[in-house]
Amino acid sequence: MKVGVYGLGRFGRFWAEQLALRFPVVAYNRSKRDIELKGVDIVEFEYLVTCDVIFICTAISSLREVLTRLAPSVRKDALIIDTCSVKVYPKRLMQDLLPESVSIIATHPMFGPDSGKDGVQGLPIMMDPLRCPQETSVYWSETFRSMGLEVLHMSCDQHDREAAYSQGVTHFVGRMLDELKLQKTQLATVGYIKLLEIVEQTCNDPLQLFLDLQRYNPYAQQMHSDLNSAISTILALLTRMDDAPMEDL
Amino acid sequence: MKVGVYGLGRFGRFWAEQLALRFPVVAYNRSKRDIELKGVDIVEFEYLVTCDVIFICTAISSLREVLTRLAPSVRKDALIIDTCSVKVYPKRLMQDLLPESVSIIATHPMFGPDSGKDGVQGLPIMMDPLRCPQETSVYWSETFRSMGLEVLHMSCDQHDREAAYSQGVTHFVGRMLDELKLQKTQLATVGYIKLLEIVEQTCNDPLQLFLDLQRYNPYAQQMHSDLNSAISTILALLTRMDDAPMEDL
Repeated sequence: MKVGVYGLGRFGRFWAEQLALRFPVVAYNRSKRDIELKGVDIVEFEYLVTCDVIFICTAISSLREVLTRLAPSVRKDALIIDTCSVKVYPKRLMQDLLPESVSIIATHPMFGPDSGKDGVQGLPIMMDPLRCPQETSVYWSETFRSMGLEVLHMSCDQHDREAAYSQGVTHFVGRMLDELKLQKTQLATVGYIKLLEIVEQTCNDPLQLFLDLQRYNPYAQQMHSDLNSAISTILALLTRMDDAPMEDL
Repeated sequence: MKVGVYGLGRFGRFWAEQLALRFPVVAYNRSKRDIELKGVDIVEFEYLVTCDVIFICTAISSLREVLTRLAPSVRKDALIIDTCSVKVYPKRLMQDLLPESVSIIATHPMFGPDSGKDGVQGLPIMMDPLRCPQETSVYWSETFRSMGLEVLHMSCDQHDREAAYSQGVTHFVGRMLDELKLQKTQLATVGYIKLLEIVEQTCNDPLQLFLDLQRYNPYAQQMHSDLNSAISTILALLTRMDDAPMEDL
């Protein structure tokens, strides 16, 4: 079985090397080509589309373009697995744009080169077999498990609902705090050290991922609104307090 | 040497037990009295004030009242050590309200029962000997070090400036996210798990500590203003993005 990876951004490079621990892996990247990855052959588009399985690791916002390019060229019996950080939007695009004979599994590996730097053991991957024979779904479920991942079967809609208020909030807070240019300090409490780790980790990811996460998740706007209300609530509490007579300040 | 602790809230109870690993410790609490602590005798106010050293572990906002009560009663050669989470304000109050013969050391143990639950080894304590013989300052510096703490000598002003943008930010974010009632999810990324830990840890502390931290630190208001601007910047970025034509959403 030939496994291919489309897109060698930060996550694609990481994921291709993880897959290469199990399979012969080829990978294609549209722009930058001089990439060296352990166990991965960098190939042309024409070779990539001969693969039995293609993992899509491109930005969410370029998915339409990528699928439009892949659709007429992939094998009729190919399996396409996306790895986008939102799921409702890719689900619809893949179902709409890929030929009916092509199998589709939606996944979201809930980690990256930072959280997976010491290995992916125990890290979660969400999976929704949208259109494929059951044995294909079982095969990949077991493969991910054998890589040490915790496989979460879940609908794309449920994923987006929960991810907006977990991964989405985390990235929002990370980017927000990055604006403050927080410094290391000897006074760092355990909590502050964790906060700096969150800022570093979320801002290591490309800005495009942040923007796409917040834009293409149908539940993100409600989360922003909730977050904005929360800030106002706390600031109002402190302002009310500042209005109180305060002889000592 | 008799060591006393004034105030047995969440931090006072923890700190009294830590000190009791080194010294015979007595402790006084104004309201609730039926407290049992390992190695600590709960005493009346009249006995507390006979101590050579008194650690103040009360809320920042009640410090004026506590010092006013202690001032006429403590030993002339007593040493008062406060443990407040802000330092400029307690410094001024202690210098103003305590008799000149009384020695004063300002400290901020940068931890609590959560971060110190597995012991205080390696955790930081800030210290500024405001008014005391050098040997007293050296003695306590060495004592804290022998407890495994990392002693940071720093002015009260520098403490508040740095703490507003470290501990202060952490507590603000923790309380803000608590408003969102975030849930555990199987989809939790490593970053999100850290975020939940911050929420839990900051909200385990009394609300009064949060309010005092944000109110009595002269640099906190600037931090709030910076945080508010950061949120607006990110939301504006996302709004501009939402305005863009977006065929796929």
